[in-house]
Amino acid sequence: MEVRIPKRTLAEGLSILERIIPSRSSNPILTYLPLELSDNGLILKGTNGEVDIEVRLPAEIQGTGQMLVPAQTFSQIVRSLPGELVELIFGERLELHSGAFNTQLSITSSEGYPELTFGNPGSEKISASRLAQAITRVRYAASTEEYRAIFRGVQLEFSPQGLRSVASDGFRLARYDLPITLESRKLVIPARSADEIVRVFKDVQGEVALAVGEGTLTLVGDAVRMAVKLMEGEFPDYARVIPQSFVLEATLSAEALQESLKRVAVLSDRNNHRVNLLFNEGKLDIDAEGDYGRGREELNIETSGESQIMVAYNAQYLIDALAPVEGTVRIKLSGPTSPSIVQATEDSGYLAVVVPLRV
Amino acid sequence: MEVRIPKRTLAEGLSILERIIPSRSSNPILTYLPLELSDNGLILKGTNGEVDIEVRLPAEIQGTGQMLVPAQTFSQIVRSLPGELVELIFGERLELHSGAFNTQLSITSSEGYPELTFGNPGSEKISASRLAQAITRVRYAASTEEYRAIFRGVQLEFSPQGLRSVASDGFRLARYDLPITLESRKLVIPARSADEIVRVFKDVQGEVALAVGEGTLTLVGDAVRMAVKLMEGEFPDYARVIPQSFVLEATLSAEALQESLKRVAVLSDRNNHRVNLLFNEGKLDIDAEGDYGRGREELNIETSGESQIMVAYNAQYLIDALAPVEGTVRIKLSGPTSPSIVQATEDSGYLAVVVPLRV
Repeated sequence: MEVRIPKRTLAEGLSILERIIPSRSSNPILTYLPLELSDNGLILKGTNGEVDIEVRLPAEIQGTGQMLVPAQTFSQIVRSLPGELVELIFGERLELHSGAFNTQLSITSSEGYPELTFGNPGSEKISASRLAQAITRVRYAASTEEYRAIFRGVQLEFSPQGLRSVASDGFRLARYDLPITLESRKLVIPARSADEIVRVFKDVQGEVALAVGEGTLTLVGDAVRMAVKLMEGEFPDYARVIPQSFVLEATLSAEALQESLKRVAVLSDRNNHRVNLLFNEGKLDIDAEGDYGRGREELNIETSGESQIMVAYNAQYLIDALAPVEGTVRIKLSGPTSPSIVQATEDSGYLAVVVPLRV
Repeated sequence: MEVRIPKRTLAEGLSILERIIPSRSSNPILTYLPLELSDNGLILKGTNGEVDIEVRLPAEIQGTGQMLVPAQTFSQIVRSLPGELVELIFGERLELHSGAFNTQLSITSSEGYPELTFGNPGSEKISASRLAQAITRVRYAASTEEYRAIFRGVQLEFSPQGLRSVASDGFRLARYDLPITLESRKLVIPARSADEIVRVFKDVQGEVALAVGEGTLTLVGDAVRMAVKLMEGEFPDYARVIPQSFVLEATLSAEALQESLKRVAVLSDRNNHRVNLLFNEGKLDIDAEGDYGRGREELNIETSGESQIMVAYNAQYLIDALAPVEGTVRIKLSGPTSPSIVQATEDSGYLAVVVPLRV
């Protein structure tokens, strides 16, 4: 059993797995890396119990078989190798040669390592980078609180009209629509697993095939297979918190508003991060007051609707909602204490809802 | 009382103070920033109890006086200002204007703020960047242990022959010589305060003037004054641990040795980080063995003296000792268990001593 593989290929493969393979675990075998020599290449695997990943790397291979190496040590060694090529020779130990460096690494039989199962995708595919984008745009709104556990996930709604991603913590909501034809179903992915999907697929060219099985979503790319455990249940009906009629609409640069909010918020109350926004015929006055004083800034905006309205927000919630918006933002107010909408004028897929603070 | 100052000038001044002004303190007044309007410019101050710093910034000033502003809030605001110019107007509150942003910040009288005293330097001066360099070269060897507290400092030895900086933790020692004529004395600076000297002066052009007073060293640059509390006592005689006769000398690339040690050390014992170095007629064999296996690498070296000798080190100690060496390193062995010397062939000022591990 021998493998010859470019150091870079091996290091890139390991970097996909490194974050999910735990460095400590109550089940120590999960800290090991399964290496499988197959006719299809060198296969690396890892799991954190929530996300299973398999990476297939092109390599010159003699023989077939599978064994475990200590994941962290193996990664550290591979990253620091002096040569461009790595030679792996499996015997009682794993001999690794690269340039003038040689190592003999203890290996373990793969017996006892959990079998990772991946769904078999049908014909449903989606652009890897756009899937990552749909998750990234809404991820910030997911809850970190223990209660209402379902809100600690990102909901993906597949339908013939498209993929809709949604996240909410009850005080704010983010929704993103990607036009694509899919079979109808709803899944909720734990937010941390959603982060892993983004990390692995955001820079991948091409498409991933999707397979939804009993409690898992499998994503299959050219070199990577990933199975993600789903959360049970689905989001409560959130459509009713999205307001439909508005008293005022304002348009302005998302970046200017975000920068201005950051400055003014420095002075805001440390507990509720309250900033007051006074929309007033072509002007937006932002101000905040806390223990150390008061900050105030005026921006030029375009408005339609009522001539004047004051709304207070948690500054951080508004800053988060603006982050995915490039260019111009449209803010739609349904009233001083009822939910506001944040939309990107140049990307109709994105919509955020922020509930104002009580006056 | 009014100040007009470029945002950049003010932000740079604050960045010098930010790290030493505590964000929390049992003496809360130390979390404030004294702002002094004087004929010499805008003066900012701060202290962490060990290091006092005063920064003088050129500014358009009307009036004189001094007051305190909350340091962290003020810094955060200044960093994020939209305009290029900042206007400060002192009244009951501090009004700060920049671009479309305005703030009113609460201010406090400077009563109760400790008076910072700086020594008056004579004619002794030293290049700011080279002083920083002399400290940086040896800093790593300072102890972090509670016992033998003096070793938690960096000793500066002034003499007509030069400035010698020394640090040691009892298992290793680093020494750096800078040729310059100074009046003879020895000072020990707490390692953390030494880090502040480096941070503030490493990129400063020109010279700093030195004043040694009762228990303090004052450093005076063009715009910055810094007073550092000294440790009591001086280093025990360390000269006797520096070996004078050698059984083998080896020369090789410092970077190649460092990289190789890092790779091999991945496999080393987690407790003592032991690596074995076998010097053997033009070859250096490095190997380490731990729970996960064994690593080994061979480097070409030039040697003189005995034909073969094996020495074991804590890999991290040797890696640290090599870090300040650019180009070629000369390693001088006095025996398998007696101290070894690490020298930079291209910088005669640097010398490190590493005590081998017992075989």
